[in-house]
Amino acid sequence: MERTFAIAVIGPADASPPELAVAEDVGAAIAAAGWTVVTGGLGGVMEAASRGARSRLGATIGILPGSDPDAANGWVQLVIPTGLGQARNTLVVAAARGVVAVGGGYGTLSEIAFALRAGKPVFGVGTWDVPGVESVTDAAAAVERLRAVTT
Amino acid sequence: MERTFAIAVIGPADASPPELAVAEDVGAAIAAAGWTVVTGGLGGVMEAASRGARSRLGATIGILPGSDPDAANGWVQLVIPTGLGQARNTLVVAAARGVVAVGGGYGTLSEIAFALRAGKPVFGVGTWDVPGVESVTDAAAAVERLRAVTT
Amino acid sequence: MERTFAIAVIGPADASPPELAVAEDVGAAIAAAGWTVVTGGLGGVMEAASRGARSRLGATIGILPGSDPDAANGWVQLVIPTGLGQARNTLVVAAARGVVAVGGGYGTLSEIAFALRAGKPVFGVGTWDVPGVESVTDAAAAVERLRAVTT
Amino acid sequence: MERTFAIAVIGPADASPPELAVAEDVGAAIAAAGWTVVTGGLGGVMEAASRGARSRLGATIGILPGSDPDAANGWVQLVIPTGLGQARNTLVVAAARGVVAVGGGYGTLSEIAFALRAGKPVFGVGTWDVPGVESVTDAAAAVERLRAVTT
Repeated sequence: MERTFAIAVIGPADASPPELAVAEDVGAAIAAAGWTVVTGGLGGVMEAASRGARSRLGATIGILPGSDPDAANGWVQLVIPTGLGQARNTLVVAAARGVVAVGGGYGTLSEIAFALRAGKPVFGVGTWDVPGVESVTDAAAAVERLRAVTT
Repeated sequence: MERTFAIAVIGPADASPPELAVAEDVGAAIAAAGWTVVTGGLGGVMEAASRGARSRLGATIGILPGSDPDAANGWVQLVIPTGLGQARNTLVVAAARGVVAVGGGYGTLSEIAFALRAGKPVFGVGTWDVPGVESVTDAAAAVERLRAVTT
Repeated sequence: MERTFAIAVIGPADASPPELAVAEDVGAAIAAAGWTVVTGGLGGVMEAASRGARSRLGATIGILPGSDPDAANGWVQLVIPTGLGQARNTLVVAAARGVVAVGGGYGTLSEIAFALRAGKPVFGVGTWDVPGVESVTDAAAAVERLRAVTT
Repeated sequence: MERTFAIAVIGPADASPPELAVAEDVGAAIAAAGWTVVTGGLGGVMEAASRGARSRLGATIGILPGSDPDAANGWVQLVIPTGLGQARNTLVVAAARGVVAVGGGYGTLSEIAFALRAGKPVFGVGTWDVPGVESVTDAAAAVERLRAVTT
């Protein structure tokens, strides 16, 4: 048995159509690599990434800020309704070996900060320009880079 | 796709041989029912329940108090190293639809309290005598009762 | 300068008149001893203890489960709106050198469990009968015992 | 009675002498305004800001990541040893009405993100250039701006 190898896909609930398309591609590429997708479990980028993962029969985890499991989007298999509010952002990062950020508001920025502080690799598509985040052009590049640095 | 249906098995890291035997049976019975076993990810009851689940090819989640994933026992597939200390006890309960307590120290008592406060069913084998905890005699009885109240 | 010495008063928001009277006495006695009262910041026992402390010009801290500071009762000076839900129970205990429990539901039970696990003294008036909790008859006895074990 | 009005001073434990000097000035200016200084309770910027506040007889709160109260610097009056690890960053922000950032690593960035997400004013001296952070030149300017936007 191997441990589950999870990659976090982070980004805003309020995302643009191009961001949603990228997030879905990222989720699909992660699943195609045999990895699990972990997100914050809500809408927008989180939902698109989860849907992408499911389109490749990948496993999906959603770590919610609230305590109602029904708040998770329909593509999340394992729901963890934390009730911790924004502190749950630390858990999305903690559960993952690496992070892909797509777009991003302040919640996403907090997750990027936590990931970099923990020394985890962060790849970004159109996200915050923070030293330590490596910009990639698309989902395939993100997964290629993740594979290079995590295995 | 169905959501993952998880049951928490809670109990002390420092457990007696009879408690470990019961915990392993409980984990196996939960897995045989097709459910996922979630624990605090460490030793003792947590490890025995996870091992029991794996003996039936069941899925296992370990939600650790610390931030080092390597602290998880070897039977945990999905490790979530929270770094939240004892506050992670709220998450073990939050991730589950019901709880089985085997033996128990103060950490277990806190988890029982959180589960009962959240209105989740708690079944116990030789655990704290708290109003709301339904005592059962063995693993088979625990799973039978869980099936009755959660579906 | 000395560090603030805080004692937690824990108990339900939904308390009986006798419990409220005891909680107010406990808060007053803690303040009279020169100590700070820390509670969960809401109503019932938490409010009565804070009011009692203020009646002796004592300092009061309220550590809320939600993120809205206005949810604190009117006797709390320092409000910490955690947004952590029930996980904030760990913080009420963590902020204190000792605990007085008055009455109690499941939330109170979780706090008792966390305090005992952390090795902190817990005195109770009409609360859960858990090994490690020392029963006292009134506020004066609680403070006398706290003084004996914490200094 | 008025609620305690707290301002968070955030910044790295590993700070440069100029950053420490600014942080001490910021703490002193906050205390001179009659406000409480809340920090993460450790060294560097956190310690300098607390020392500055105490130099004006101001009140100081330290919200620690660990569970050992003795890890707090010597200028903290009220210690809250959360045991929550980096998730405690959410609490430093939650306890405050506004934030002053001095210098900054990734932990500071996470706190800035949480503050902006919560709609709290953030003033920075030589910190992250994030939209929403208003740059100020010194401690006096930070307090002047805080007074303008919070009262």
